[in-house]
Amino acid sequence: MAAVKTMDDLFLHLLKDMYHAEKQLLKALPKMAKNSESEQLKKALTNHLAETEDQVKRLEEVFDLLGKKAQGIPCKAMQGLVEEGKEAMEEVEDPQVLDAALLSDAQAVEHYEISRYGTLIAWANQLGLNDAVRLLEQTLAEEKNADKLLNEIALGNVNQKAA
Amino acid sequence: MAAVKTMDDLFLHLLKDMYHAEKQLLKALPKMAKNSESEQLKKALTNHLAETEDQVKRLEEVFDLLGKKAQGIPCKAMQGLVEEGKEAMEEVEDPQVLDAALLSDAQAVEHYEISRYGTLIAWANQLGLNDAVRLLEQTLAEEKNADKLLNEIALGNVNQKAA
Repeated sequence: MAAVKTMDDLFLHLLKDMYHAEKQLLKALPKMAKNSESEQLKKALTNHLAETEDQVKRLEEVFDLLGKKAQGIPCKAMQGLVEEGKEAMEEVEDPQVLDAALLSDAQAVEHYEISRYGTLIAWANQLGLNDAVRLLEQTLAEEKNADKLLNEIALGNVNQKAA
Repeated sequence: MAAVKTMDDLFLHLLKDMYHAEKQLLKALPKMAKNSESEQLKKALTNHLAETEDQVKRLEEVFDLLGKKAQGIPCKAMQGLVEEGKEAMEEVEDPQVLDAALLSDAQAVEHYEISRYGTLIAWANQLGLNDAVRLLEQTLAEEKNADKLLNEIALGNVNQKAA
Protein backbone atom coordinates (compact mmCIF):
# COMPACT_ATOMS: atom_id res chain seq x y z
CA MET A 1 0.00 0.00 0.00
CA ALA A 2 3.07 2.23 -0.29
CA ALA A 3 1.48 4.39 -2.98
CA VAL A 4 -1.74 5.12 -1.05
CA LYS A 5 -1.79 8.84 -0.30
CA THR A 6 -5.32 9.93 -1.26
CA MET A 7 -8.84 8.50 -1.35
CA ASP A 8 -8.37 7.94 -5.10
CA ASP A 9 -5.32 5.79 -4.32
CA LEU A 10 -7.22 3.92 -1.60
CA PHE A 11 -10.15 3.25 -3.98
CA LEU A 12 -7.75 1.92 -6.63
CA HIS A 13 -5.98 -0.22 -4.02
CA LEU A 14 -9.24 -1.89 -2.91
CA LEU A 15 -10.30 -2.31 -6.54
CA LYS A 16 -7.07 -4.28 -7.16
CA ASP A 17 -7.65 -6.28 -3.97
CA MET A 18 -11.16 -7.25 -5.16
CA TYR A 19 -9.91 -8.02 -8.67
CA HIS A 20 -7.48 -10.52 -7.16
CA ALA A 21 -10.18 -11.82 -4.81
CA GLU A 22 -12.67 -12.47 -7.64
CA LYS A 23 -9.98 -14.17 -9.73
CA GLN A 24 -9.19 -16.49 -6.82
CA LEU A 25 -12.89 -17.30 -6.61
CA LEU A 26 -12.98 -18.20 -10.31
CA LYS A 27 -10.56 -21.00 -9.43
CA ALA A 28 -12.12 -22.00 -6.09
CA LEU A 29 -15.84 -22.14 -7.00
CA PRO A 30 -15.62 -24.99 -9.57
CA LYS A 31 -13.72 -27.12 -7.01
CA MET A 32 -16.30 -26.35 -4.34
CA ALA A 33 -19.17 -27.19 -6.74
CA LYS A 34 -17.47 -30.46 -7.74
CA ASN A 35 -17.10 -31.48 -4.09
CA SER A 36 -20.72 -30.67 -3.16
CA GLU A 37 -23.12 -33.53 -2.61
CA SER A 38 -26.30 -31.41 -2.60
CA GLU A 39 -27.59 -30.63 -6.08
CA GLN A 40 -28.95 -27.31 -4.78
CA LEU A 41 -25.54 -26.28 -3.45
CA LYS A 42 -23.75 -27.47 -6.59
CA LYS A 43 -26.17 -25.38 -8.69
CA ALA A 44 -25.84 -22.29 -6.46
CA LEU A 45 -22.03 -22.42 -6.65
CA THR A 46 -22.07 -22.99 -10.43
CA ASN A 47 -24.48 -20.09 -10.96
CA HIS A 48 -22.30 -17.89 -8.79
CA LEU A 49 -19.28 -18.83 -10.91
CA ALA A 50 -21.06 -17.34 -13.95
CA GLU A 51 -21.89 -14.21 -11.90
CA THR A 52 -18.25 -13.99 -10.76
CA GLU A 53 -17.13 -13.95 -14.40
CA ASP A 54 -19.42 -10.93 -14.97
CA GLN A 55 -18.12 -9.29 -11.79
CA VAL A 56 -14.52 -9.59 -13.01
CA LYS A 57 -15.58 -7.89 -16.27
CA ARG A 58 -17.30 -5.09 -14.31
CA LEU A 59 -14.16 -4.51 -12.25
CA GLU A 60 -12.23 -4.27 -15.55
CA GLU A 61 -14.74 -1.64 -16.70
CA VAL A 62 -14.13 0.34 -13.49
CA PHE A 63 -10.35 0.19 -14.04
CA ASP A 64 -11.06 1.41 -17.56
CA LEU A 65 -13.18 4.34 -16.28
CA LEU A 66 -10.21 5.34 -14.11
CA GLY A 67 -7.84 5.04 -17.09
CA LYS A 68 -5.90 2.34 -15.23
CA LYS A 69 -4.78 -1.14 -16.24
CA ALA A 70 -6.79 -3.94 -14.61
CA GLN A 71 -4.39 -5.47 -12.13
CA GLY A 72 -4.69 -7.53 -8.94
CA ILE A 73 -2.77 -7.32 -5.69
CA PRO A 74 -2.82 -10.34 -3.37
CA CYS A 75 -5.96 -10.20 -1.23
CA LYS A 76 -4.86 -11.92 1.99
CA ALA A 77 -8.37 -12.05 3.42
CA MET A 78 -9.72 -13.95 0.41
CA GLN A 79 -6.64 -16.19 0.39
CA GLY A 80 -7.47 -17.13 3.98
CA LEU A 81 -11.15 -17.71 3.17
CA VAL A 82 -10.35 -19.89 0.16
CA GLU A 83 -7.78 -21.81 2.21
CA GLU A 84 -10.44 -22.66 4.82
CA GLY A 85 -12.69 -24.12 2.10
CA LYS A 86 -9.75 -26.07 0.67
CA GLU A 87 -8.95 -27.60 4.06
CA ALA A 88 -12.57 -28.72 4.43
CA MET A 89 -12.50 -30.40 1.00
CA GLU A 90 -9.27 -32.22 1.83
CA GLU A 91 -10.22 -33.37 5.29
CA VAL A 92 -14.00 -33.77 5.76
CA GLU A 93 -15.05 -37.15 4.42
CA ASP A 94 -18.79 -37.28 5.13
CA PRO A 95 -20.39 -35.61 2.09
CA GLN A 96 -23.21 -34.00 4.05
CA VAL A 97 -20.91 -32.59 6.73
CA LEU A 98 -18.68 -31.32 3.90
CA ASP A 99 -21.71 -29.62 2.30
CA ALA A 100 -22.41 -27.81 5.59
CA ALA A 101 -18.75 -26.70 5.78
CA LEU A 102 -18.72 -25.55 2.14
CA LEU A 103 -21.97 -23.60 2.64
CA SER A 104 -20.48 -21.82 5.64
CA ASP A 105 -17.26 -21.05 3.77
CA ALA A 106 -19.16 -19.80 0.70
CA GLN A 107 -21.28 -17.53 2.93
CA ALA A 108 -18.14 -16.15 4.60
CA VAL A 109 -16.79 -15.34 1.12
CA GLU A 110 -20.04 -13.59 0.16
CA HIS A 111 -20.02 -11.56 3.37
CA TYR A 112 -16.46 -10.46 2.71
CA GLU A 113 -17.44 -9.33 -0.76
CA ILE A 114 -20.65 -7.61 0.44
CA SER A 115 -18.57 -5.64 2.92
CA ARG A 116 -15.86 -4.62 0.44
CA TYR A 117 -18.26 -3.75 -2.41
CA GLY A 118 -20.25 -1.65 0.07
CA THR A 119 -17.04 0.24 0.86
CA LEU A 120 -16.13 0.64 -2.82
CA ILE A 121 -19.60 2.07 -3.56
CA ALA A 122 -19.35 4.54 -0.64
CA TRP A 123 -15.91 5.69 -1.81
CA ALA A 124 -16.94 5.87 -5.50
CA ASN A 125 -19.92 8.01 -4.46
CA GLN A 126 -17.80 10.47 -2.57
CA LEU A 127 -15.26 10.60 -5.41
CA GLY A 128 -18.10 11.36 -7.87
CA LEU A 129 -17.45 8.19 -9.89
CA ASN A 130 -21.11 7.67 -10.85
CA ASP A 131 -20.52 5.10 -13.60
CA ALA A 132 -18.38 3.05 -11.21
CA VAL A 133 -21.15 3.23 -8.58
CA ARG A 134 -23.66 1.84 -11.09
CA LEU A 135 -21.39 -1.11 -12.01
CA LEU A 136 -20.45 -1.89 -8.40
CA GLU A 137 -24.09 -1.76 -7.29
CA GLN A 138 -24.97 -4.47 -9.83
CA THR A 139 -22.27 -6.68 -8.34
CA LEU A 140 -23.30 -5.93 -4.75
CA ALA A 141 -26.90 -6.94 -5.56
CA GLU A 142 -25.62 -10.25 -6.99
CA GLU A 143 -23.46 -10.93 -3.92
CA LYS A 144 -26.36 -10.24 -1.56
CA ASN A 145 -28.61 -12.50 -3.60
CA ALA A 146 -25.98 -15.28 -3.63
CA ASP A 147 -25.67 -15.06 0.17
CA LYS A 148 -29.48 -15.14 0.55
CA LEU A 149 -29.69 -18.25 -1.63
CA LEU A 150 -26.88 -20.00 0.27
CA ASN A 151 -28.64 -19.13 3.52
CA GLU A 152 -31.88 -20.69 2.30
CA ILE A 153 -29.98 -23.84 1.37
CA ALA A 154 -28.15 -23.84 4.72
CA LEU A 155 -31.38 -23.53 6.69
CA GLY A 156 -33.04 -26.08 4.41
CA ASN A 157 -32.22 -29.68 3.81
CA VAL A 158 -28.43 -29.73 3.75
CA ASN A 159 -27.78 -29.05 7.40
CA GLN A 160 -30.77 -31.10 8.56
CA LYS A 161 -29.61 -34.15 6.63
CA ALA A 162 -26.13 -33.90 8.13
CA ALA A 163 -27.33 -33.64 11.75
CA MET B 1 -9.77 -30.57 10.23
CA ALA B 2 -8.64 -34.20 10.33
CA ALA B 3 -10.98 -35.06 13.18
CA VAL B 4 -14.14 -33.63 11.57
CA LYS B 5 -16.47 -36.54 10.93
CA THR B 6 -19.85 -35.35 12.23
CA MET B 7 -21.78 -32.08 12.57
CA ASP B 8 -20.75 -32.03 16.25
CA ASP B 9 -17.11 -32.10 15.16
CA LEU B 10 -17.73 -29.39 12.57
CA PHE B 11 -19.45 -27.17 15.15
CA LEU B 12 -16.51 -27.64 17.56
CA HIS B 13 -14.04 -26.90 14.75
CA LEU B 14 -15.73 -23.60 13.88
CA LEU B 15 -15.99 -22.72 17.56
CA LYS B 16 -12.19 -23.12 17.85
CA ASP B 17 -11.72 -21.07 14.67
CA MET B 18 -13.82 -18.22 16.12
CA TYR B 19 -12.05 -18.46 19.48
CA HIS B 20 -8.75 -17.89 17.71
CA ALA B 21 -10.31 -15.14 15.56
CA GLU B 22 -11.65 -13.22 18.58
CA LYS B 23 -8.30 -13.54 20.37
CA GLN B 24 -6.54 -12.09 17.33
CA LEU B 25 -9.01 -9.20 17.43
CA LEU B 26 -8.22 -8.54 21.09
CA LYS B 27 -4.68 -7.74 19.92
CA ALA B 28 -5.61 -5.89 16.71
CA LEU B 29 -8.40 -3.58 17.95
CA PRO B 30 -6.27 -1.52 20.38
CA LYS B 31 -3.72 -0.87 17.61
CA MET B 32 -6.47 0.14 15.19
CA ALA B 33 -8.03 2.46 17.81
CA LYS B 34 -4.63 4.01 18.55
CA ASN B 35 -4.05 4.71 14.86
CA SER B 36 -7.49 6.28 14.28
CA GLU B 37 -7.70 10.02 13.85
CA SER B 38 -11.49 10.26 14.18
CA GLU B 39 -12.69 10.29 17.78
CA GLN B 40 -15.88 8.50 16.69
CA LEU B 41 -13.91 5.68 15.10
CA LYS B 42 -11.51 5.45 18.05
CA LYS B 43 -14.50 5.17 20.41
CA ALA B 44 -16.30 2.59 18.25
CA LEU B 45 -13.17 0.38 18.11
CA THR B 46 -12.54 0.75 21.85
CA ASN B 47 -16.16 -0.13 22.67
CA HIS B 48 -15.93 -3.13 20.40
CA LEU B 49 -12.80 -4.26 22.21
CA ALA B 50 -14.84 -4.47 25.43
CA GLU B 51 -17.55 -6.41 23.56
CA THR B 52 -14.92 -8.73 22.12
CA GLU B 53 -13.73 -9.56 25.65
CA ASP B 54 -17.31 -10.61 26.49
CA GLN B 55 -17.54 -12.59 23.27
CA VAL B 56 -14.40 -14.56 24.17
CA LYS B 57 -15.99 -15.38 27.54
CA ARG B 58 -19.21 -16.50 25.82
CA LEU B 59 -17.24 -18.80 23.53
CA GLU B 60 -15.56 -20.25 26.64
CA GLU B 61 -19.04 -20.87 28.08
CA VAL B 62 -20.04 -22.71 24.90
CA PHE B 63 -16.90 -24.89 25.11
CA ASP B 64 -17.90 -25.55 28.72
CA LEU B 65 -21.44 -26.55 27.71
CA LEU B 66 -19.89 -29.09 25.32
CA GLY B 67 -17.56 -30.36 28.07
CA LYS B 68 -14.55 -29.33 25.98
CA LYS B 69 -11.48 -27.27 26.75
CA ALA B 70 -11.53 -23.76 25.23
CA GLN B 71 -8.92 -23.91 22.52
CA GLY B 72 -8.20 -22.00 19.31
CA ILE B 73 -7.08 -23.23 15.91
CA PRO B 74 -5.52 -20.72 13.53
CA CYS B 75 -8.26 -18.87 11.66
CA LYS B 76 -6.63 -18.09 8.32
CA ALA B 77 -9.46 -15.83 7.19
CA MET B 78 -9.13 -13.59 10.26
CA GLN B 79 -5.32 -13.66 9.94
CA GLY B 80 -5.72 -12.29 6.40
CA LEU B 81 -8.24 -9.65 7.53
CA VAL B 82 -6.02 -8.48 10.39
CA GLU B 83 -3.01 -8.43 8.05
CA GLU B 84 -4.84 -6.07 5.67
CA GLY B 85 -5.51 -3.63 8.53
CA LYS B 86 -1.88 -3.88 9.62
CA GLU B 87 -0.62 -3.04 6.14
CA ALA B 88 -2.85 0.04 6.06
CA MET B 89 -1.48 1.24 9.43
CA GLU B 90 2.10 0.76 8.26
CA GLU B 91 1.73 2.36 4.87
CA VAL B 92 -1.05 4.98 4.71
CA GLU B 93 0.26 8.28 6.05
CA ASP B 94 -2.71 10.64 5.67
CA PRO B 95 -4.71 10.18 8.89
CA GLN B 96 -8.09 10.65 7.22
CA VAL B 97 -7.33 8.23 4.39
CA LEU B 98 -6.09 5.79 7.05
CA ASP B 99 -9.37 6.19 8.95
CA ALA B 100 -11.31 5.27 5.79
CA ALA B 101 -9.09 2.19 5.32
CA LEU B 102 -9.43 1.15 8.97
CA LEU B 103 -13.21 1.56 8.82
CA SER B 104 -13.38 -0.66 5.74
CA ASP B 105 -11.12 -3.28 7.35
CA ALA B 106 -13.11 -3.23 10.61
CA GLN B 107 -16.35 -3.69 8.65
CA ALA B 108 -14.84 -6.64 6.74
CA VAL B 109 -13.95 -8.19 10.12
CA GLU B 110 -17.52 -7.65 11.40
CA HIS B 111 -19.00 -9.19 8.26
CA TYR B 112 -16.78 -12.23 8.64
CA GLU B 113 -17.94 -12.65 12.22
CA ILE B 114 -21.61 -12.06 11.37
CA SER B 115 -21.38 -14.80 8.76
CA ARG B 116 -19.63 -17.32 11.03
CA TYR B 117 -21.80 -16.67 14.10
CA GLY B 118 -24.86 -17.06 11.84
CA THR B 119 -23.52 -20.48 10.86
CA LEU B 120 -22.72 -21.45 14.46
CA ILE B 121 -26.27 -20.52 15.52
CA ALA B 122 -27.81 -22.56 12.67
CA TRP B 123 -25.68 -25.58 13.57
CA ALA B 124 -26.27 -25.20 17.33
CA ASN B 125 -30.03 -25.09 16.63
CA GLN B 126 -29.99 -28.27 14.63
CA LEU B 127 -27.81 -29.99 17.24
CA GLY B 128 -30.31 -28.94 19.95
CA LEU B 129 -27.70 -26.86 21.83
CA ASN B 130 -30.21 -24.29 23.08
CA ASP B 131 -27.95 -22.67 25.69
CA ALA B 132 -25.24 -22.25 23.08
CA VAL B 133 -27.76 -20.67 20.69
CA ARG B 134 -28.69 -18.12 23.36
CA LEU B 135 -25.05 -17.15 24.00
CA LEU B 136 -24.13 -16.99 20.31
CA GLU B 137 -27.20 -14.88 19.53
CA GLN B 138 -26.04 -12.25 22.04
CA THR B 139 -22.70 -12.08 20.27
CA LEU B 140 -24.29 -11.95 16.80
CA ALA B 141 -26.46 -9.00 17.89
CA GLU B 142 -23.32 -7.17 19.10
CA GLU B 143 -21.46 -7.84 15.84
CA LYS B 144 -24.39 -6.57 13.76
CA ASN B 145 -24.64 -3.49 15.93
CA ALA B 146 -20.88 -2.85 15.63
CA ASP B 147 -21.09 -3.09 11.84
CA LYS B 148 -24.09 -0.72 11.77
CA LEU B 149 -22.20 1.81 13.89
CA LEU B 150 -19.07 1.57 11.70
CA ASN B 151 -21.27 2.03 8.65
CA GLU B 152 -22.81 5.20 10.09
CA ILE B 153 -19.31 6.55 10.78
CA ALA B 154 -18.15 5.54 7.27
CA LEU B 155 -21.09 7.29 5.62
CA GLY B 156 -20.67 10.27 7.92
CA ASN B 157 -17.81 12.64 8.34
CA VAL B 158 -14.76 10.39 8.09
CA ASN B 159 -14.97 9.56 4.40
CA GLN B 160 -16.20 13.01 3.47
CA LYS B 161 -13.26 14.68 5.17
CA ALA B 162 -10.79 12.44 3.39
CA ALA B 163 -12.20 13.05 -0.11
